[in-house]
Amino acid sequence: MDFEFFMPAHLIFGLGKIKDTGVYAKSFGKNALIVTGKSSAKKTGHLDTVAKSLEKEGVNWTLFDEVEPNPLTTTIDKGITLARNSKVDVIIGLGGGSAMDSAKAIAFGVKREGSIANYFGPQPAGDVLPIILIPTTAGTGSEANNYSVMTNPETSAKKSFSSPDTFAKVSIIDPELTLTVPKKVTASTGIDVFFHALESYLSKRSQPISKPLAFEAMKLVLDNLKGAYEHGDKIEYREPMAWASTIAGMAINLSGTCGIHGLGHPISAYYNIAHGETLAAVSLAFLRFSLPDASPKLAKVAELFGIDTKDISENEAAQKAIKALEEFIEDLGIPTKISALGVKEEDIDKLAQNAYENASSNLKSSPKFPSLEDVKKIYRDSL
Amino acid sequence: MDFEFFMPAHLIFGLGKIKDTGVYAKSFGKNALIVTGKSSAKKTGHLDTVAKSLEKEGVNWTLFDEVEPNPLTTTIDKGITLARNSKVDVIIGLGGGSAMDSAKAIAFGVKREGSIANYFGPQPAGDVLPIILIPTTAGTGSEANNYSVMTNPETSAKKSFSSPDTFAKVSIIDPELTLTVPKKVTASTGIDVFFHALESYLSKRSQPISKPLAFEAMKLVLDNLKGAYEHGDKIEYREPMAWASTIAGMAINLSGTCGIHGLGHPISAYYNIAHGETLAAVSLAFLRFSLPDASPKLAKVAELFGIDTKDISENEAAQKAIKALEEFIEDLGIPTKISALGVKEEDIDKLAQNAYENASSNLKSSPKFPSLEDVKKIYRDSL
Ligand SMILES: [Fe+2]
Ligand SMILES: [Fe+2]
Repeated sequence: MDFEFFMPAHLIFGLGKIKDTGVYAKSFGKNALIVTGKSSAKKTGHLDTVAKSLEKEGVNWTLFDEVEPNPLTTTIDKGITLARNSKVDVIIGLGGGSAMDSAKAIAFGVKREGSIANYFGPQPAGDVLPIILIPTTAGTGSEANNYSVMTNPETSAKKSFSSPDTFAKVSIIDPELTLTVPKKVTASTGIDVFFHALESYLSKRSQPISKPLAFEAMKLVLDNLKGAYEHGDKIEYREPMAWASTIAGMAINLSGTCGIHGLGHPISAYYNIAHGETLAAVSLAFLRFSLPDASPKLAKVAELFGIDTKDISENEAAQKAIKALEEFIEDLGIPTKISALGVKEEDIDKLAQNAYENASSNLKSSPKFPSLEDVKKIYRDSL
Repeated sequence: MDFEFFMPAHLIFGLGKIKDTGVYAKSFGKNALIVTGKSSAKKTGHLDTVAKSLEKEGVNWTLFDEVEPNPLTTTIDKGITLARNSKVDVIIGLGGGSAMDSAKAIAFGVKREGSIANYFGPQPAGDVLPIILIPTTAGTGSEANNYSVMTNPETSAKKSFSSPDTFAKVSIIDPELTLTVPKKVTASTGIDVFFHALESYLSKRSQPISKPLAFEAMKLVLDNLKGAYEHGDKIEYREPMAWASTIAGMAINLSGTCGIHGLGHPISAYYNIAHGETLAAVSLAFLRFSLPDASPKLAKVAELFGIDTKDISENEAAQKAIKALEEFIEDLGIPTKISALGVKEEDIDKLAQNAYENASSNLKSSPKFPSLEDVKKIYRDSL
């Protein structure tokens, strides 16, 4: 079996570590661009903390706060122009996956010509501004991988790009920042962590380093997400969720996601629904479709759910795992059907076509490769 | 809990990957120094394979083949002089831990003044020549960490140094190279892998990323080392042992080793005994000394040995784990007593003093911190 490991980001975990942002930024230059969403980093005070830390270390900063939940290539192009005009030396992504992915794309785009929309897919190594990432949700794991997911509004393609140089130089994972994450966002970002781990394990690209990370992340989510959802102010649930997110981010960096992300992305491209909710709503039908090919692995996942698998077949264990996952999702107040997200039957052809065009590598690495008709059927079964 | 992750080496795993050495070396310059042991890389043909790959890509090479099993600082100083005189751009370490650690030390020393013996302990970031590491045993995991262990012949101190820049740029882990490792070396290097994983887990510095890596490595060793020992020509055992070694190397990079390595190093400093054998011979007494502090963690290790821990106390489970480890070591033909290695009772004071002087951080991070008298007692109990 051939595989590689490459994750050069320096990860700094710990309560209060956000206050060291300036110390790290200073090592890269005098001018920083802070990339964040429209309001939340302001409301929570995290933007203020970062700004103060930069000022304390003598680093000038410019703010780009126009990132939307599913960031558009057109928005990122605006950020690139701002970064160029402000002659910044380092890009700081502060927020959820959208802000962090936009920071990567801006750091990459500054040194390149034309719209960022020209750069979907894997990109060669090259000149990229130093990136610092500070997640404020436990979700994407973007701080530990080099992926950036963007939506092209002209084509409704929600796709990712990556380069060997779009890893953060430093990622500051401060679980304290997640204490203020609203209940609904805690649930949808937390379930995203679970799917990163699960899909990287189910993926045909699963490998000897991603597997133990994926298992640890799944275990941590099953043990702590409900607590974080119900008692959002308790750091004892937020802390393990924060590192589960990072560990799962490392796992997808090594093995990618597969069909659940492949079928989820088109929904948020058209409907602008929280990423984690789209995953949950297609996951059960996707996993059932993937039997029996996925059964040996899902039987191992069943054990994580505390299911006694000793005297049952792998297929039975897999089915029990899917059932347990359904209950886990429901307990988090997340819909398990795409109809509950507003998806209509007449949209399914369009969604399936989009998945087939934009997520072909996710579909190919799935335990069972779905045809276009299979994708439609999975969407229909998810209605 | 605060912790960090930083492992920027690009790991390339796979059968036959050694043939790509030249492709990677070329990206760092025109002149390479190959650092290896006195004979084994020549006998096995691995040196030839590397040389041919370099030549194919137009990379000139110089050979430094004077590395001994427990490399001396004086030997490394000779390698540094050769590297300087040959104006090399990249250092290639080909061999076991000794060759790889020497390669790191030479790459570091070329840009610095005086003997390498002046640079024990953690060193600041700075100019280091690019390093390529190619392990030919499944043992040290040196390819995935920035440690270099050397012995100063003047003081008999066997100590390590590390810098943020002494990670390999590229490590090529080609399990095929381990097919020719002799039975005895397979056992002693393989048990080293187990102790890296076990100690990084028992260490007070154990953390959320090292733990799953350590467990995976322990599981792989328990499942495959006896097979590799008994059927050395079977790649199905060699392959998982190769990545177990690398994963365990990552784990010690994050959490270090603890008292077993701390008490093992002095023995090989004085007696020049295979590293893994020194560990095995002190491990049982060290673990018994560490009870009950280490019991909760050793109880989890007991499960890896297949021990049913449901109806017994953590302490009982821990004791059973130590017993199972003893049998595992014996089945590999490795002595479980230091007397069998030639250590005499009258040497114990000297060994304990050496451990206390040179391995204080290993002792401090141990589950139960041993006093100097405790260290003597552990050595005596190991006789
Ligand atoms: Fe995701
Ligand atoms: Fe070791």
